[in-house]
Amino acid sequence: MMPQDANIAGNVFGGTILKMVDEAAYVAAMKHARCNVVTASVDKMDFLSPVHIGDLVTLSANVNAVWHTSMEVGIRVEAEEPSAGKSRHTGSSYLTIVALGPDGRPTLVPELVLETEDDQRRNREAMRRRARRLEEKAVEGFKPKRKRE
Amino acid sequence: MMPQDANIAGNVFGGTILKMVDEAAYVAAMKHARCNVVTASVDKMDFLSPVHIGDLVTLSANVNAVWHTSMEVGIRVEAEEPSAGKSRHTGSSYLTIVALGPDGRPTLVPELVLETEDDQRRNREAMRRRARRLEEKAVEGFKPKRKRE
Amino acid sequence: MMPQDANIAGNVFGGTILKMVDEAAYVAAMKHARCNVVTASVDKMDFLSPVHIGDLVTLSANVNAVWHTSMEVGIRVEAEEPSAGKSRHTGSSYLTIVALGPDGRPTLVPELVLETEDDQRRNREAMRRRARRLEEKAVEGFKPKRKRE
Amino acid sequence: MMPQDANIAGNVFGGTILKMVDEAAYVAAMKHARCNVVTASVDKMDFLSPVHIGDLVTLSANVNAVWHTSMEVGIRVEAEEPSAGKSRHTGSSYLTIVALGPDGRPTLVPELVLETEDDQRRNREAMRRRARRLEEKAVEGFKPKRKRE
Amino acid sequence: MMPQDANIAGNVFGGTILKMVDEAAYVAAMKHARCNVVTASVDKMDFLSPVHIGDLVTLSANVNAVWHTSMEVGIRVEAEEPSAGKSRHTGSSYLTIVALGPDGRPTLVPELVLETEDDQRRNREAMRRRARRLEEKAVEGFKPKRKRE
Amino acid sequence: MMPQDANIAGNVFGGTILKMVDEAAYVAAMKHARCNVVTASVDKMDFLSPVHIGDLVTLSANVNAVWHTSMEVGIRVEAEEPSAGKSRHTGSSYLTIVALGPDGRPTLVPELVLETEDDQRRNREAMRRRARRLEEKAVEGFKPKRKRE
Repeated sequence: MMPQDANIAGNVFGGTILKMVDEAAYVAAMKHARCNVVTASVDKMDFLSPVHIGDLVTLSANVNAVWHTSMEVGIRVEAEEPSAGKSRHTGSSYLTIVALGPDGRPTLVPELVLETEDDQRRNREAMRRRARRLEEKAVEGFKPKRKRE
Repeated sequence: MMPQDANIAGNVFGGTILKMVDEAAYVAAMKHARCNVVTASVDKMDFLSPVHIGDLVTLSANVNAVWHTSMEVGIRVEAEEPSAGKSRHTGSSYLTIVALGPDGRPTLVPELVLETEDDQRRNREAMRRRARRLEEKAVEGFKPKRKRE
Repeated sequence: MMPQDANIAGNVFGGTILKMVDEAAYVAAMKHARCNVVTASVDKMDFLSPVHIGDLVTLSANVNAVWHTSMEVGIRVEAEEPSAGKSRHTGSSYLTIVALGPDGRPTLVPELVLETEDDQRRNREAMRRRARRLEEKAVEGFKPKRKRE
Repeated sequence: MMPQDANIAGNVFGGTILKMVDEAAYVAAMKHARCNVVTASVDKMDFLSPVHIGDLVTLSANVNAVWHTSMEVGIRVEAEEPSAGKSRHTGSSYLTIVALGPDGRPTLVPELVLETEDDQRRNREAMRRRARRLEEKAVEGFKPKRKRE
Repeated sequence: MMPQDANIAGNVFGGTILKMVDEAAYVAAMKHARCNVVTASVDKMDFLSPVHIGDLVTLSANVNAVWHTSMEVGIRVEAEEPSAGKSRHTGSSYLTIVALGPDGRPTLVPELVLETEDDQRRNREAMRRRARRLEEKAVEGFKPKRKRE
Repeated sequence: MMPQDANIAGNVFGGTILKMVDEAAYVAAMKHARCNVVTASVDKMDFLSPVHIGDLVTLSANVNAVWHTSMEVGIRVEAEEPSAGKSRHTGSSYLTIVALGPDGRPTLVPELVLETEDDQRRNREAMRRRARRLEEKAVEGFKPKRKRE
């Protein structure tokens, strides 16, 4: 993390982390789908511990589940102060990414092979999160629209 | 939006939008609290309509509610294709921002004056969102922790 | 304003301000003309008060006058130290912006509706500045050209 | 010039050029004064010919005159399309730069040695421009101030 | 790889790759030495296959050998066109990195544990490269110095 | 050199210097060949003296030799602390640059006119470096290939 990633007190901006989260998810999704992709939604993200200028930040991305033309990618962010050598969990997020064909329209995503027990657990949890998202969307659909939120 | 903000097909990255969302919230919170601030969490954000290179993007930020040392800032993102002159709603998000004193620790945020009816509605909705967030956190607290999500 | 915007003593570069001035004028002109635009000239700009890392900088842009294929856009720059909450006038500039058609050649700009008394005053002043610019250009035209200035 | 320096039609932004003009003047002034410097004003700049992505842009900077704590630096901008190999004059500007001591306050600038006839001509012209600037400032001083320009 | 990383024909600049090579080596060296580090030299690098806008570039870094206050880090660069899913070797380089203490002077690097056969082979090769470097330096020392190379 | 060019201790990254080296070589080669060019290899570069934030860095580029479709460009990097006004040699490198035609394939480079004695010495040295490079490549060709270096 460099000075341009942080405010005047040396705290790295949440937006800097979010940009890296989206980039990592973009690459992971593109490597699975082997085509262009676009982020459709980013789940709530808590910044669990502050990140400072000079910290090394590592993002791990995993394609958790696949549905026709979309994927859920899970991202885990860890930061470490180089001299300490102990990384701490900074935050996690789940992104829904859509695969796009050469015409710019959604296209089929290859199926996901669930090899390990971890893969299966992540897939089950992704399914649950998706069900909750669809539920919330259904509820929102009944709310009267307002011009300015 | 410029070429460096978008993928090879010209779709602006979600991460570019999220970075601007965090910046706008940062400035709005700092203007209210008159001190340094840091983002504690960003709510789920759906990208409702694609943004392209060349689009003008406008972010509106509003401090919706204030609690001791934190604030909720609501952000609305709109994009317009310059020649069309019609802006479309791209997405909205709610961020929890914490005020920091010169010692880098949370500090009191000045109270919020709710002047218009819109101010009061946004405040009520922010209160509801906060209640839901605390509820969810309580539920999460009972889940067994896992080392790698 | 961030570290990358300033010299080693923390003074924001004039060039950083000028780049933002041009960007704000570009957006204002494009929103009026609803087509691509290009900056033809930037008037003299005095930096009235220093800007520092950490300051919030706000630019206000206004299309002051319109002539066939060009516009004058006025920009006012204000800076504020966040904890103080008092903005100071940093500088103002006037830019001549030309509207470009899809063929890259100058194209007609829609007329300007002058609604308030302020609009009319700014328009009168823009007319005076333009007269002076044309006058100066005429004088320069009589000067013998030199290969290297 | 790269894609990030230009609008969607490939025309390089005036603001990109202005930023480079200020940087070149900053370096030239710092090399003469051998201390930190800050831009006090930038003269009117006409963009005489469009610059495109892929063009090579060359800036020549010259310290034209020195007054106690300030200098005038002249900048000439030339652009060339690499395959053509013929550079064209894009614009020129004159900047007033102030030397700053370690305390951040204006400090004396070393005298300028005028070696060639060109040096002397540039110095005379800089003197004339300064006289005109002071004159204009005096005239402006009599105008009633307005809150918003 | 993005438009700002490439020339007008879409070929990624060697300099963009070299910057990433140095960054990857910096992080790998810092993770081994657990202190600040600085690059002392970068070996010859051949760009074996062109990289284009849109390619995914992956860098693998390995600390090959350690000598008192310095390390050799080997970097392998691979690029893949996302839709093809087949990565190609773009280039490799070896960097000598020096560990710095809090006083900014060279400091001892922890010893390297060579676990696998690959680790041992890389270590042997690094030793040979170092011997050759010292040899070349000795030869250069006998050449008459020239003011401008 | 700015904060974003350096690590947390203020030492400018080798990668920042290497990127400028490649850019300077790119411009020099393009000015000679008058067509698009691409870097084929960068010779070993020693960082002879540290560069710090605030230093002025100057790169001198010279086309030393030309072979059918490629050139050797020599780069010399010098840094100076502005208040001292004494530049020091930071490093030198030699790059092999290939000229590309409109079809993206290597194209003939115009011959080089060697005017001064310095030109001729640089040309002779470039010839020697090339002979050594070809020799090393021939030796490498006999080594058994390994999948991962």
